[in-house]
Amino acid sequence: MKRKFLKTCLTALCGGLLGLFTTNAQQYQANWASIDSRPIPNWFEDAKFGIFIHWGLFSVPAWGPTAKNNVGIYDRYSEWYWQTLTNAKRPGYPSTLAFHEKAFGKDFKYQDFAKGFTCEMYDPSDWANIFENAGAKYVVLTSKHHEGYTLWPSAQAWNWNAVDLNPHRDIAGDLTKAVKDKGLRMGFYYSLYEWFNPLYKKDVDTYVTSHMIPQMKDLVTRYTPDILWTDGEWDHPSEKWKSTEFLAWLYNDSPSKAEVVVNDRWGKETRSKHGGIYTTEYDLVHDANSSSMEIAHPWEECRGIGSSFGYNRNENLEDYSSSKQLIDILIDKVARGGNLLLNVGPTADGRIPVIMQQRLADMGKWLKINGDAIYGTRKWEKSPKVTPETKVFFTKKNKDLYVLLTQWKNTPVTIEGVSGGTVSMLGYNGAIKVQKKGNALTITPPALTPDVNPSEYAWVFKISGAL
Amino acid sequence: MKRKFLKTCLTALCGGLLGLFTTNAQQYQANWASIDSRPIPNWFEDAKFGIFIHWGLFSVPAWGPTAKNNVGIYDRYSEWYWQTLTNAKRPGYPSTLAFHEKAFGKDFKYQDFAKGFTCEMYDPSDWANIFENAGAKYVVLTSKHHEGYTLWPSAQAWNWNAVDLNPHRDIAGDLTKAVKDKGLRMGFYYSLYEWFNPLYKKDVDTYVTSHMIPQMKDLVTRYTPDILWTDGEWDHPSEKWKSTEFLAWLYNDSPSKAEVVVNDRWGKETRSKHGGIYTTEYDLVHDANSSSMEIAHPWEECRGIGSSFGYNRNENLEDYSSSKQLIDILIDKVARGGNLLLNVGPTADGRIPVIMQQRLADMGKWLKINGDAIYGTRKWEKSPKVTPETKVFFTKKNKDLYVLLTQWKNTPVTIEGVSGGTVSMLGYNGAIKVQKKGNALTITPPALTPDVNPSEYAWVFKISGAL
Amino acid sequence: MKRKFLKTCLTALCGGLLGLFTTNAQQYQANWASIDSRPIPNWFEDAKFGIFIHWGLFSVPAWGPTAKNNVGIYDRYSEWYWQTLTNAKRPGYPSTLAFHEKAFGKDFKYQDFAKGFTCEMYDPSDWANIFENAGAKYVVLTSKHHEGYTLWPSAQAWNWNAVDLNPHRDIAGDLTKAVKDKGLRMGFYYSLYEWFNPLYKKDVDTYVTSHMIPQMKDLVTRYTPDILWTDGEWDHPSEKWKSTEFLAWLYNDSPSKAEVVVNDRWGKETRSKHGGIYTTEYDLVHDANSSSMEIAHPWEECRGIGSSFGYNRNENLEDYSSSKQLIDILIDKVARGGNLLLNVGPTADGRIPVIMQQRLADMGKWLKINGDAIYGTRKWEKSPKVTPETKVFFTKKNKDLYVLLTQWKNTPVTIEGVSGGTVSMLGYNGAIKVQKKGNALTITPPALTPDVNPSEYAWVFKISGAL
Amino acid sequence: MKRKFLKTCLTALCGGLLGLFTTNAQQYQANWASIDSRPIPNWFEDAKFGIFIHWGLFSVPAWGPTAKNNVGIYDRYSEWYWQTLTNAKRPGYPSTLAFHEKAFGKDFKYQDFAKGFTCEMYDPSDWANIFENAGAKYVVLTSKHHEGYTLWPSAQAWNWNAVDLNPHRDIAGDLTKAVKDKGLRMGFYYSLYEWFNPLYKKDVDTYVTSHMIPQMKDLVTRYTPDILWTDGEWDHPSEKWKSTEFLAWLYNDSPSKAEVVVNDRWGKETRSKHGGIYTTEYDLVHDANSSSMEIAHPWEECRGIGSSFGYNRNENLEDYSSSKQLIDILIDKVARGGNLLLNVGPTADGRIPVIMQQRLADMGKWLKINGDAIYGTRKWEKSPKVTPETKVFFTKKNKDLYVLLTQWKNTPVTIEGVSGGTVSMLGYNGAIKVQKKGNALTITPPALTPDVNPSEYAWVFKISGAL
Repeated sequence: MKRKFLKTCLTALCGGLLGLFTTNAQQYQANWASIDSRPIPNWFEDAKFGIFIHWGLFSVPAWGPTAKNNVGIYDRYSEWYWQTLTNAKRPGYPSTLAFHEKAFGKDFKYQDFAKGFTCEMYDPSDWANIFENAGAKYVVLTSKHHEGYTLWPSAQAWNWNAVDLNPHRDIAGDLTKAVKDKGLRMGFYYSLYEWFNPLYKKDVDTYVTSHMIPQMKDLVTRYTPDILWTDGEWDHPSEKWKSTEFLAWLYNDSPSKAEVVVNDRWGKETRSKHGGIYTTEYDLVHDANSSSMEIAHPWEECRGIGSSFGYNRNENLEDYSSSKQLIDILIDKVARGGNLLLNVGPTADGRIPVIMQQRLADMGKWLKINGDAIYGTRKWEKSPKVTPETKVFFTKKNKDLYVLLTQWKNTPVTIEGVSGGTVSMLGYNGAIKVQKKGNALTITPPALTPDVNPSEYAWVFKISGAL
Repeated sequence: MKRKFLKTCLTALCGGLLGLFTTNAQQYQANWASIDSRPIPNWFEDAKFGIFIHWGLFSVPAWGPTAKNNVGIYDRYSEWYWQTLTNAKRPGYPSTLAFHEKAFGKDFKYQDFAKGFTCEMYDPSDWANIFENAGAKYVVLTSKHHEGYTLWPSAQAWNWNAVDLNPHRDIAGDLTKAVKDKGLRMGFYYSLYEWFNPLYKKDVDTYVTSHMIPQMKDLVTRYTPDILWTDGEWDHPSEKWKSTEFLAWLYNDSPSKAEVVVNDRWGKETRSKHGGIYTTEYDLVHDANSSSMEIAHPWEECRGIGSSFGYNRNENLEDYSSSKQLIDILIDKVARGGNLLLNVGPTADGRIPVIMQQRLADMGKWLKINGDAIYGTRKWEKSPKVTPETKVFFTKKNKDLYVLLTQWKNTPVTIEGVSGGTVSMLGYNGAIKVQKKGNALTITPPALTPDVNPSEYAWVFKISGAL
Repeated sequence: MKRKFLKTCLTALCGGLLGLFTTNAQQYQANWASIDSRPIPNWFEDAKFGIFIHWGLFSVPAWGPTAKNNVGIYDRYSEWYWQTLTNAKRPGYPSTLAFHEKAFGKDFKYQDFAKGFTCEMYDPSDWANIFENAGAKYVVLTSKHHEGYTLWPSAQAWNWNAVDLNPHRDIAGDLTKAVKDKGLRMGFYYSLYEWFNPLYKKDVDTYVTSHMIPQMKDLVTRYTPDILWTDGEWDHPSEKWKSTEFLAWLYNDSPSKAEVVVNDRWGKETRSKHGGIYTTEYDLVHDANSSSMEIAHPWEECRGIGSSFGYNRNENLEDYSSSKQLIDILIDKVARGGNLLLNVGPTADGRIPVIMQQRLADMGKWLKINGDAIYGTRKWEKSPKVTPETKVFFTKKNKDLYVLLTQWKNTPVTIEGVSGGTVSMLGYNGAIKVQKKGNALTITPPALTPDVNPSEYAWVFKISGAL
Repeated sequence: MKRKFLKTCLTALCGGLLGLFTTNAQQYQANWASIDSRPIPNWFEDAKFGIFIHWGLFSVPAWGPTAKNNVGIYDRYSEWYWQTLTNAKRPGYPSTLAFHEKAFGKDFKYQDFAKGFTCEMYDPSDWANIFENAGAKYVVLTSKHHEGYTLWPSAQAWNWNAVDLNPHRDIAGDLTKAVKDKGLRMGFYYSLYEWFNPLYKKDVDTYVTSHMIPQMKDLVTRYTPDILWTDGEWDHPSEKWKSTEFLAWLYNDSPSKAEVVVNDRWGKETRSKHGGIYTTEYDLVHDANSSSMEIAHPWEECRGIGSSFGYNRNENLEDYSSSKQLIDILIDKVARGGNLLLNVGPTADGRIPVIMQQRLADMGKWLKINGDAIYGTRKWEKSPKVTPETKVFFTKKNKDLYVLLTQWKNTPVTIEGVSGGTVSMLGYNGAIKVQKKGNALTITPPALTPDVNPSEYAWVFKISGAL
C-alpha cells in the first residue's frame, strides 16, 4: 500500500510539474492503465461528507414501496418508478401499478408527470445554505437519471428536459452557481443508459456516439463540475460505452481536468477496479471479490436519509434514519477511510423536506463541535477492526488521534498503541483524566450531566500529539 | 372558586340523576345563563393534550408568509390564503397575490384548487396511530373552514365539499371512525361564517337558518362528535348566530349531548365569557379584561407546530418549534390549568409531514415516561406564579405533586409548601436525595449522565403523598 | 277561434288601459284560471323563428349516442350526460359510462368538467350577428339546466356557476346585452328540478322556497327577460313548485311583466293546459289528449339541428338536418300556427359550430327572400289538412295569402277557396301565369332554370288581396 | 407530350422487366439528372383529387388569424402557431401571443399542448369513409410538421411523438391501414426542418444524418407510403439535405419504390425544377420563372377548405370556401392539368369538423354524377386559355371531350376545334340539342328546372368520340 501511495504521489507531482511546461499534452491515454494512474485529487478525501440529490420526473409520483411492504432495500427506490411501473408483474413485488392506477388513473403515462414537475418553491441559494450548515463539503445532483430527462437544456434531450418542459428552468446551472458561491464543490450524477430510449434499445453504439458522449461533454463544458458520478453502466463493458476515451478527454482537455473526481461506474467490469473513487451503496460492495471498505483506495458510501434516493411520499418517520443513526454512519465510514454521500430527495415543487432539513441540521450541529475529528482525517492504520458492534472509532490527522464514542459509558476507555499526547474532549471545557501504561492510554469519561453535555449522539476525545 | 366547583359538581350530579328519570327533558334553555350552567365534562380536563387538524382546499396552495417576511404571527396562517389573495393590497403585506400569479397564473381561481385536493395518500388509520403514539387524547378536525368547503357531504355545500369534488371521499367520517377506534375522542372545528358565500354576504339571517344551523345539526347527527369547536364568530353577536338555540338543542336533544364539549366562540361578545371551554391561540387571550390562563375555568391553547395551522410549504426548519419547545409549551399550559391543542397541517395528498410526525413522536416518547405528571392532573393552587422565566413547574393529581424541570441544573431544588411525601424521578431507577425542612422540601438532582438519562427536554420529580 | 281572439285582444287592451291607471294592482292571482287569462303577447306569434341555446357543463364532454347507436331520439341528448353516466345500467343503452371511462378515466367526476368550460372563444356579439342573419327574432339560453350549474352568478348556486368557476364570466348577462342590442328578444330556459342537488332530493319544499324561487326571481330581476322557458317540471304538480305564486309575481310585479312569455312546463299536469305557450319537442306532443299542432293556442316546436340540444361531438354529417330539411320544418310549423325554436349547441370554448352557422346562414338567406310568407303570418283556416306528404303549404297575413312549395313541380298548382288577388313569386321578377275558375285559382310555375331561380329549398307564391 | 408518354411507358415497362431479372440494381443515382428521369407513376395523374390532413400539436391551440385580422393568406396557417408565438413581435401581425396569454396563460409553453392532443374521437375508418365518399383517391397526412412532433413512434423523436405522449397511439399506422383498406392511396407529408430542434439549429449535418434521414427511412419502411410529400426545405440546398441520396434509396431499395410519388420540395433550389410532381399552394407558384399551371409536368395544388391547413377555431363560416367554390377550384385545376390536394384539419380530439364533412360530401355528390369528366382525364391541348373569368372548361379522356360549365347560362355554347361526337349531359336523361358548323360544335342547354337539375354548382356536357 505504501508503494502504491508513493507512486500516486509521484504521479501527481510529475503531473503537476508537467503541467507547468506543457500545454494540452495528451497526458492520459484511452486505456485503463493510463486512466487509473491519475491520482484522486486530495480535496475529495479531505471533504468526507457530501450531499447527493436525486431529483427528476420521478419526484412527481414520488412513490416507492417501503420496509412494511416486505421488499428488499434496493426495491424501495422511488426513482425506479417508471421501471417498476412498466415491469409490474415481478412476483412478490408490491405493485407500483396498483398505486399508479389508483392515484393517477390507467391512462396516465409516465411522460404525463412532466406537467407536475413545477419547482415553484425551488431556491438554489436556500438549498446551498442548508448543505453548508449541514457541514457538507460537496454536492452531487442527478443531471440525468435512467429516465433520460435532463435537468439542463441538453440538445440531445430536446423536449425531454427541464428547460423545454416544466419548470422551464436550468436547474443544474442554477444549483451549480449557488453551491459554488458557498465555496462547496459541485458535481453531477449522470446515467449512462436510458431505460426506454429507443435509440439505446435499438443501437447502443449510435446512442453512445450521437447521444451520450455529446451530452456528457456538454455537461462538463457548460458547468465545469468537480465530480462526475456516472451510473447505469451495468448492461455493457466500458469499451462499449467508450469510457476511457471520454475520461482521457475529461482528464486532458476538459475545463474540469485539474480537480475533477469520477467514480468506478464506467462499465460492467469496472466497479472497485477502474476509474476514480470506489463506490458502495447502502453498504453494498458491488465487487464481491474486493471489499472497498477495507482497502486503501478512496471510496464513498452513498445512501438516502430514508430508504429511497428519490423523494418517497410513502415513507413515514419509521422509514427515516434518525440523526443519531446518521452520525453513527458518518463516523463508521470515515473511520474506515471512506466518505459519506448522503442523499436528499427534493419534492416536485422544489423543497427539501423539513425532516431532511432537520437531519442535516442535527449533523451540522454535531460537526460544528466535532468536525475536527472528521474533515481532513484519514483512517488510523492501528485501529482495531471495525465491526457492527464497534462503539469506539478512530481517525487521525497529522500528529493527532481522535477517539469517537458512539455510545456513552461511564467506564474508562483504553487505547492500545498510543503512549503520548494530550487528551481533551471536543466541546467540553473540563480536564480529562488520563492514565498512561506502556503502549496504552486509559481515558476516564467526565460526569457529563445534561447541563455540560456538548453534544448528543456521539462524543470525541482528541489526543493531540499522539502520533 | 371552591363554591363554583361545588356548584359545578352538584349541577353535574343533578344532571346525571335527572338523566336517569327523565327523557329529553328540556334541561337547558336557549339563554347563556342556562347554557353556561352546564359543567364541562370531566374527560376534557383529564385529557390535556389534543391534536388539531387544519385540512381543506387551502392545503393545496399550502402557502403563507413566514417570520422572515416580517409579518405578525396571525398573518402567517396559510388557511387564510383565499382571503389574503383577495385582499392583497394591505400595505406592508407580503403578497400572496405575487406568489399566486407566479406559481399558478393570473387566471387561476381559488376554486380551481379543488382539483388538487387529491388525498391519495390519506390513511385515517395511520393518522390515528400517529396521534395515539403522540400521547394525544383527542382530535379536532376542520369540518369546514372559512372557505365554506366541507370535509363531509353536506347538502348545504353541494359541489363544494370533499365528496362531490376531489377526493370524492367522506374525510370527516373516515377519520372519526379511525380515531374512535383507537379510543381517542373526536371533534370538529366549524366556521360559523364563510368569507365569500353570497348568501352570507347578502342576508345573514337566511344564511344562519337555511345554511349554517342545518349544517351543524347534520354534522352532529351524522358523527356524534365529542367536541364542537366553532370559530369565525366575530362579525356578529351570538344572537344573530342563534347560538344559544343551537346549544340548547346540542345539550338537550343531540346524540352528542352526554359528553360533548364546546368552546367560547359563539358570537362577538362570548370569548372567555360564554359557552364551554375558553380558548387561547398562540397565547393570545381574546378578551383583554380576562386572562384565561389564570382563571379557574377550563381552557385550551391552540397553536401549530409551525406558525400556520394549514400546511405551509413556505415554512422551513427554522419556522417549526423544536420538540424541546413543544414539551415546554405543554408543561407551561398544563401547569397553569390548561390543555394544549397542537395543530398538524396535512398535505393535499393526505400525509402528515414527517417533520410533524417527528415532533409528535418525540412528545409521545416523553409522555410515555412522564405522562403521569400531565394526564388527569390539575393546576397546583400553591404553585409560584408562572412567568416566562419559570423553569420549575407543578401539577397535582389526587395526593401527589409533580415537579417538572424544563432546564437541568445540578443544584438542589427547594419546594415551599410541601412537607411530606416520597420523592422519585420518573423514568429513573436510582434513589433521590431529599431534605425536609419545615414546610419545604429540598431535592438534590442525581448525576444524570447520558447512559442513565431517562428523557430529553424535561425531567419530573414525583412527590407521592405530598398533598 | 275568432271569439277567443277578440277576447284576447280585449283582455290585452284592458290590461293596457288598466296599466295606465293602476300601479302594481294585483291583476293576476296565484291560480291557473287567473294566470291563464293573460294573453300571449303578440310579438311572440309574429316572431315565428327563435334560437334555442343549450350551453353548460354538459358542453364539455359534449357526447351522446346517435342514431347509429340504435337509441331513440330522446336518448340522444348530450345535456343528459350526467344522468346517463350515473344510471348507466339501463338495458340496451349504449354506455355513456364506457365512453366516459375511455375518454376521461374512471375517477373523473362530472364536476371535474367545470375546468374544461373555458369559453375563451365566446363572443356574444358574434353570436347575436349569426342569429340576426339567420332571420331569428328571439333567443332562449339555458340559464340553468338539470345539472344545476348556472350561467349567471346565482347566490343559490355558489361555486356552481360560470362566474365562480370557469370561465369566470356572466355568460347570461353578456348574451342578453348583445342580443337586445341587435333588437332581438332575449329569454331564458330554466330547469325547475336539479337531478343531484341533495336539497332537492331530500326536501323539495325547502328547495323550492330557499333555492328555486329566489333563483328565478333573481334571474328575472337582473336581466328582464322576454321569455321564461321552464322545464324539468315533471316530478311534481305545479302546486309543489309554487308555480302560480311565481307567475303572479312575474305578471304583476316583475320588471318583465309587460311582455314576458312563458311556456306550459310548470308542473306534471300543466303541459298543453296551463301557463303560456304550448310546447312540442321533436314533434312530441306531451299531452296525448290534446294535439298542440292543431289547436288555436300559440305553440312552439323546439328541436336541434342535430338530434341533441347540447353540443354532441359524436354527431357527424348524417346526424344533422340539412338546410332543406330545416326550411321544410319551419314551413310546416308556421303553416300549422306554430313557432320554431331551433337549437344550437355551442362548444365548451364558446363557438357555434360552423356547420350550424352554415344551416342558419342558409335559412337566413331563404328568409331574406321569402320571409314575407313567414313573419307576422298566421295559419290559414281554410288550408287543407297538413300531412307528412304535404308539399304545398299556406300562411296568411292581413289580406294576403302565401303558397309555399317545398317541392318543385312543373305542373300547375290549384288553390281552392280563393278567387281573387294578384299572384307573384317571391324573389322572381317574371310574371306568373294564373287562371281563376270559380272559387279556385290555378298557378302555372315559371321555367325556373338555375340562372333565374331565386332560392333553393322552397318557393313562395304570394296572392296579394286574396282574403 | 405523347413522346414523353411513350417514353414513360417504356421506362416503366423496362423497369418492371428489369425487376424480374435483377435484384437491387442501382437504377437511379444520387443526382438530379438521374432522379428526375424517373417518370411520375400514372396513378397519380389519374387520381386528380386527394385529401391533405394537417394534424399535430398545433391542432390543440387550433388558432390563427383570419381575413378579418388583415393578414395575408400565408399568415393564417394555424400550424405555424409555435413560430408566430415565438416571433410575436412582427409589426402589423395580429398577436398569437395576445391570444395565447389570454387563453392559456403566460407560463403555458407549446410543449404543454401535448396533454391536450387527446384524439379520443379518432376513428380512422370513419375518416377513410368520408374521404372515399368525397371522391378522393389519395390521402396525405402530416407525419411530422415543422414542430418536430411525429404521428408515429419515431425513435429519433422519443417523447415527442403521439405514442410516447398523448394520445399514446400510432396515428400514422392506423390511418394508413384504414385508407388502404378502402382502396385509396396513402402518403405522408414530412417536414425536413424542425424550427426549434437544437440539433437542427446547431449542426444541420448531424441533424440530417442522425435524425432526419433515419426518420424518413423508418417512415417509408414501416408504412410503404404511395406518396412522400416533403416540405420545410427552404433553408438549405438539396445537397445539404442529402435529398438525391435519399431519393435514390427510395426509388431503388425502399418497399415503396414501385409506385411512390414525391414532390419538388427537396432543397431551396428545387421547386418546379426537380423531384417528382410540382406543387402550388393557394395558387402560389414558388418559382417565379416557371408557371407550373401551364407546363406539361404533373402538378398539384394544395389548399385548405378554409385559409388554414391546421384546424383553426377562429375561422367562421365566412372563412370557409363554399362547396360551389371548391367544385370550381377542382375544375379549374384539372382543366389545366393539375391535381387538387384539398386539406382538412381535424380537431385535437380526432374529429373532422362537420362543416368539412359537408363540403366533402357535396363534392362527392357532384363527382358521383360528374366524375367521368375528372378522373383519368388530361388537359385538352386545344382548350382556350383559362383565365379567372373562364366559366367553360375542358378535359379529355381517350376519344372523349368534356365541357364543364361553372355558371349556367340559357344561351348556346360553341366549342371550337371539335367537329364530331355525340353530346350528352352527365346526370341528365334528356336529349341535348347540338349544331355542328365547320370545326365547331354549338350546344343548346336544356330547360333545367329544379325537378330535373342533376347537380348544383357545375354541369358537364360530354362529347363522346370528339377526339
